[in-house]
Amino acid sequence: MAKAKVHVFLKPGVLDVQGKAVESALHGLGWPTVENVRVGRVIEFDLGEGGADEVKAMCEKLLANTVIESYRVEIA
Amino acid sequence: MAKAKVHVFLKPGVLDVQGKAVESALHGLGWPTVENVRVGRVIEFDLGEGGADEVKAMCEKLLANTVIESYRVEIA
Repeated sequence: MAKAKVHVFLKPGVLDVQGKAVESALHGLGWPTVENVRVGRVIEFDLGEGGADEVKAMCEKLLANTVIESYRVEIA
Repeated sequence: MAKAKVHVFLKPGVLDVQGKAVESALHGLGWPTVENVRVGRVIEFDLGEGGADEVKAMCEKLLANTVIESYRVEIA
């Protein structure tokens, strides 16, 4: 059965609030050199039937907010 | 400058509520064969100095909840 993995990241230029929070927490914990933290999601699932085109449709409809997020699909 | 990528996933056996929600939404949208949806996080950053051991310490202290989550570190 095909396994799909979808990576969803904020588009470059979109402020990553969660990333900024992680960055300042890491600075506070003693890692001042950490920079450009970006936090994304990974969604993994068994696809059953269909291929990359189906998964792209899922991303457009549900998995990613394409206004501010980009995604990458891997089928294994 | 070293780039670090940390993948954080719920441990097997821990109920993935977000994954279940995505799964039932995909079923409702016309993809009934999708199964075993798991949602994880990816944290990417410029490390500055230090290596994989430093990033592991960051995971233990901040990036992952090791009671219920496992993590994988990539240094590029």
